[in-house]
Parts: sequence; structure tokens; C-alpha cells
Amino acid sequence: MARYIIKFGGTSVANIDRIKHVADLVACITCEGHQIVVVVSAMAGMTNQLVGYTKSLCPLLTTPEHDVVTASGEQITVGLMALALQQLNLKSISYLGFQVAIKTDATYTNAKIDHIATHILEESLAQGIIPVVAGFQGISDHNRITTLGRGGSDTTAVALAAALNADRCDIYTDVEGVYTADPRVVFNARKIDTISHVEMLELAAQGAKVLHPRCVELSLRYNVNVRVLSSFHLVSGTTIVNEETLVEQTSIRGIAHNLSEAKVTLESIHPITIRMMADLFSTLSREHIAVDMITHTNAGHGLKNVLTFIVNKEDSMRIHAKIMELRSIIGFDTLAIDPNIVKISIVGIGIRSNLEITSLVFQTLADHQIDIQMVTTSEIKISLIVAHDHMTKAINVLHDALQLEAVTE
Amino acid sequence: MARYIIKFGGTSVANIDRIKHVADLVACITCEGHQIVVVVSAMAGMTNQLVGYTKSLCPLLTTPEHDVVTASGEQITVGLMALALQQLNLKSISYLGFQVAIKTDATYTNAKIDHIATHILEESLAQGIIPVVAGFQGISDHNRITTLGRGGSDTTAVALAAALNADRCDIYTDVEGVYTADPRVVFNARKIDTISHVEMLELAAQGAKVLHPRCVELSLRYNVNVRVLSSFHLVSGTTIVNEETLVEQTSIRGIAHNLSEAKVTLESIHPITIRMMADLFSTLSREHIAVDMITHTNAGHGLKNVLTFIVNKEDSMRIHAKIMELRSIIGFDTLAIDPNIVKISIVGIGIRSNLEITSLVFQTLADHQIDIQMVTTSEIKISLIVAHDHMTKAINVLHDALQLEAVTE
Repeated sequence: MARYIIKFGGTSVANIDRIKHVADLVACITCEGHQIVVVVSAMAGMTNQLVGYTKSLCPLLTTPEHDVVTASGEQITVGLMALALQQLNLKSISYLGFQVAIKTDATYTNAKIDHIATHILEESLAQGIIPVVAGFQGISDHNRITTLGRGGSDTTAVALAAALNADRCDIYTDVEGVYTADPRVVFNARKIDTISHVEMLELAAQGAKVLHPRCVELSLRYNVNVRVLSSFHLVSGTTIVNEETLVEQTSIRGIAHNLSEAKVTLESIHPITIRMMADLFSTLSREHIAVDMITHTNAGHGLKNVLTFIVNKEDSMRIHAKIMELRSIIGFDTLAIDPNIVKISIVGIGIRSNLEITSLVFQTLADHQIDIQMVTTSEIKISLIVAHDHMTKAINVLHDALQLEAVTE
Repeated sequence: MARYIIKFGGTSVANIDRIKHVADLVACITCEGHQIVVVVSAMAGMTNQLVGYTKSLCPLLTTPEHDVVTASGEQITVGLMALALQQLNLKSISYLGFQVAIKTDATYTNAKIDHIATHILEESLAQGIIPVVAGFQGISDHNRITTLGRGGSDTTAVALAAALNADRCDIYTDVEGVYTADPRVVFNARKIDTISHVEMLELAAQGAKVLHPRCVELSLRYNVNVRVLSSFHLVSGTTIVNEETLVEQTSIRGIAHNLSEAKVTLESIHPITIRMMADLFSTLSREHIAVDMITHTNAGHGLKNVLTFIVNKEDSMRIHAKIMELRSIIGFDTLAIDPNIVKISIVGIGIRSNLEITSLVFQTLADHQIDIQMVTTSEIKISLIVAHDHMTKAINVLHDALQLEAVTE
């Protein structure tokens, strides 16, 4: 008998028919004699509606009351899911964050799970009951409802899998798994059967939308086997496993792309000093502005000295204003923020042992006249900034050159 | 400094603009230095939507999960209301049933409040915080969410007023108060300024929709001053007070009507015995079918012997089937269920001391050729069954004859 945590996202429980459908799916799995804990998100669209309500009252989501409102979305679906399972003659009980209890810190709207009490869920499982746990929500030490922020329900599922020593955590979503590239961009993108936690973490962090990096990080830390699959088409999905359990280590696992970033460029006829950069980045840090891919070229006095970095597109306006304020201190001639870029990241454990990959990437893009504006490399990732216009072509030629379609796992 | 419980119904918090409006209203009251506890219902339509979801999964609402789903409606509004008050620079915290805690029995979908812990609310009030409490919901001994059934949020408000020794419980709704008759039926119906608990209880029980009888009963038992008024038009409303505090005792307080009932008639050529009635009514009682206004006329063997009573229209089909099953035991010739009736009830403390009222009622209806099918009288109420076609005329001529428009309080 295995123990599984099974999580259904918003599109998988979007309406009563979908809820009945996934209840059938749960019934199927329990028929095989396994212990199941179900985790559900809010119905698709519900959380956005609730956030819309709170934002129209209070644009800054800084108060605990925001969490009270948004947590109710998952409350609706746990009750409905438990009802749907009961209709199939399965024993089922819903649990909200406070009932489990899923204890979190008091960082409202973005709380971290401190501890999950397991005795109530263990008792339910021992009695053959299927617990349906509300994702996304917890309870603070002051008995106030908290929510876990983006990717919250996935995080709940993985945290429960760790706390309950589950054999696997299945994340049911509306895509069939993790792909070598976004199938909407690369026609022949291939579904990945198995991927290591670190590769998944990089893909997620670099823009693959299937799983939130936070949930992958948690699964890496607690060594939880996670499987991503579709509740719409029952095919095998993608399993995230320990690096050691990967039978064959392919060089490159996949290509992620991220359209949510913008490139900041400062130019000066005076060299840009470390002191100036320190002033700039410490100011941005105080404003909670994340900066990535810093590139710095000093050509010398009277020449073109350039500092470039990547920020979140959403922060562009604020960053522009903030840097202009600093102009008199750090001294520069021009400031440009370009939102028409895409970050393409090639991820794979094999990168660290295969030095030819970087040159292959450069060669391929050069052959197709695609200009690389910036590049960073790490042990398991190469990230490139190219103009947005080149995105589809760049990803496709890289996918071909790296033979991602052909790789057998 | 007075202490008030202020309850807003679904139409008063139907959208963000309404919530802002009632927040302003609360701010107004606190400005006068009073302590306020706010109770809110779900946004208008929300509970019906949630009940619709659960019914489409499970037509019989017998499981605790129903309550988990429907209680989330109030969770949304408490958070939004607390946010709205905070935007007005008032200190406010939302409280769900489990946080207060409002302890109930485990009769899911129709729970009774056992006990309300007051220390958390008292602490909040002492700190100048406005608690916003979710109506309609509580928590059972097993830490499961319960809901209070129809009139639930009003019941929460009155129970809180009793537990917190509030000076008054204000029920804000979409009508301006309690009227001498339904203003949609009687053009010159007059708003009642003060009414006793028992009169209000009878009016509510006999079909006046403003307050649920259960909430009025609770206010009577714990001697809570209740005021009903509109959050849309700020006029004085109707205050429900002790009988003793009514300055002037008018004979008749108002006329209620109820369209939700049907008349059951059994006819037999044999006399209908007490034994037969006992069999009939104990069977209906076991089926949780409420029966009212039983009338029984035995004309004798071979003549027309009749048993008549009133039931809820919703139960008609079930009652018909049930009584037909009993035919061989209790023996009757014909069974008819007539849904085209209305129960008109004249309510007032003065009825018990004014013997002329009953004859005035009969005289008035006779003058207008309105046939009274059944009648029952009590200390403070006269209830009549008339054909539905006569409803508007009957209520209006009684309203005129009893001079309800003219009464000064």
C-alpha cells in the first residue's frame, strides 16, 4: 500500500463537472488500495475574483484581512470535493488550514509553513477516510488565517507529502507535464518523463510555468517525489526525482523562456565604479527590487561605459524613477529600460560536464543571425537575453541544435 | 458609551460600493463614542450560488461538508468589511465562528448556538477595535464548521447581543422596518415604530419576512432590544422592545400573510375518530411534516365528515403520497390538497382584551363577500385561511377596518 498526496489545480476543479471527474479519478486510485490525501486549489478564476474585491477596497495587500477573503476560495472546493467523493461511497472529510493544523508564520499573503500537525490526518487515513485539505492556506500562532502566496496550493501538497512521508506527490494540472520547451513556441517540444529536482528548479525559476519554484525547492529540500500530470488527459506526466535515480543523464533537459523581464542599461562617458554600483544595487535592494544578470563593461574615460541588468517588467516604472533620483550620486549619461526582450534558459545537469554546449549555443544563434544581448552561465543553466522578435526562432533553433526532440530518457 | 451589535444583511453588502457605504455608516456610529460589533451576511446571491454547487453534487443537504462550503460566503464579507473599516482609519479585525468561538451543536445546516466565548471580542472592544463577526456560522465540539440555517446571521447578531450584554442589536436590511401589512399588498401600510417581542414573533412566524422567527424568539428569551432598519434609507426603523416598555398598547399591531402553505382536506361518510387522527398526525410527525390549524367536523354516519389542516406547500406531494398509504388504516373517501390559499394573520397584544376584534374581522370579510375557509384565534393572533384570489382585497379591507394606517404609537 502506497501513500500519495494528490493535488488538483484550479482548472481541474473549475466547475461541478470537473470536480465530479477528478473525484472519479481519486476513486480509481483508492480502488488500488492506496492511501490518498487530496489537496485542492480554488475553482479557476475564484481567487482572482476575491483578490479583485480586496484590491478595490485596499490596493496594497498588506493586511491580514486579505488572507481571510482569499482563503475562502479553497474552503469552497474542499467541501465540494469531499461531497463529490462521498457521492461515490468513499469516506471523506474536508480540512481547512486551521483544522489540520498547518501552522505558518504571520507574513500575510505570503506566509511560510512552519509546521504541519499530522495526527488528525493520520487518524483519518487509518480509518480509511480520504482527507481533502485546502491548499494555499494556513493558520498563524495568533489563530489568524494566512495564505501562502503564489504556487501556494502546490506548496501545501509538497509540504504535506514531506510531513506525512508520502511515496509521491501528484500535481494534477491542465498540461500533460514538463516539456523540453513551451509547446506553444516549439512545435516539436517533447514531454520530459523524468527530471531532477535541481533541473526542475531552474526550469521553474527561468519561466516554465508548470510548477512554482517555491514548491520545487521544498520538494528538493525534503526529497519528495513529485509527478506533474494532467487531469484532462490521463497520460503519464513528468516525474521529478533525485538526481541519483535518473537512469540516464542527458546533457540538456529543456529550454525555458521568460517574457516578464526588462533590460536596464546605464551608459556613462566616465567609468562606472564599484562604489557607484554598490550605491545603486543597495538602493534597489531596499526597494525589494530583484536584479539579475548584471553585466558591466568599462571602456575608459570619454568612451562608452555600460552597466546592464535584468529586472521584473512590472517594476520598470518604479525602477526608472528610483535610478533617476540617484543620478546626481552615481552619475551616468543615459538610462534606458527595454521591455522587448526575452530570457531564454537552457537547463540540464549535463551542462557542467559538457563544455561544448556553450559554444554550440553561440554558434547556432550566430548561424541564424540572432544577436545575444546578454548571457550568464551556471553549472546547470545557460541564460540568454535576445530581442523579443527573435524569441520563437531562437528557441526553435536551439531546441533543434540540442536535439531535444530526439533525446530518449 | 453604549454597546451595539450591528448586523448587515446580504443586500447591504452586495458589492464593494455597498460595503464601503455601510463602513461609512459604522464609522458614523463609532464617532459618537459607542462600542460596535459588526455582524455580516454573505453578499446577496452568494449563499444561493454555493448551495447550488452543493445541491448539484448531493441533493440532500445532510452532510457537514455543505456547511464548509456555504460558510465561506460570510468569510468573504467579514474580510472585506474589516478592510473597508481599516480604510477609514478605524481599527478592525474579522472573526470567523471558530475564532470567536461560537460553539454550536452538530446539527449541520441547521445548528443551534450552545455558547459564545466573549473574551476575544471583549479584548478587541477594550482596545478600540471593531470586531467584524461572520454571521450564520459556528464551530462544533469536533472543530467542524457548522451553519445556523435560515435567518442564521440575524440569529448570530442577537445571540452576540445577549452574550455581550449589548444595549441594542441593529438589523440593517433592505426595508425600512416592520409594517402594519406588506406594503406591496396594502398601499397605505404604515411603518411600525415600536413592537413587542411577542407581537414580532407572531408576525414573523405568520409570514412577515423582515426577521426570522428564530431570531425574534432568541431576542425574546434573552430580552435583547432589536431594531430593524434600512441601510439604504437612513430612517428610524422599527424597534422591538419589552411589552412593558410599550408606551401605548394599541389593539392590533399588524397583518401578516403567508403564501407558502396549502390546505389538506379529508372527507369521509364515516365519522373521523380521534384514533384515526392520532394515527395520521403521528405518521406526519415522524416524517417531520409540520401541521397547523387542524379543524374537524363530524356530521355523522352517511353524512359529510371533514378533517382539514394546513401544511407547507413544499411538502404537498410527499404528504399526498403518505396519506394515501394510510388510507386502508384511517379510512376516508376523498383527499384534496389546495395550494391556492393564503393565511392572513392579525397580530396584536390588544386582541386578548378586545373581544370585538374577532367579530369586526368576520363582519368586514362578510361585507366584502370574502369566504373564510378556516380560522384560529389565540391570545394575540387571529389567523384566517381565504382563497388566494381574495388575498389583496381581504388584507386591505381588514387593514382599513382595523384602522391600522391611523394608529399612533
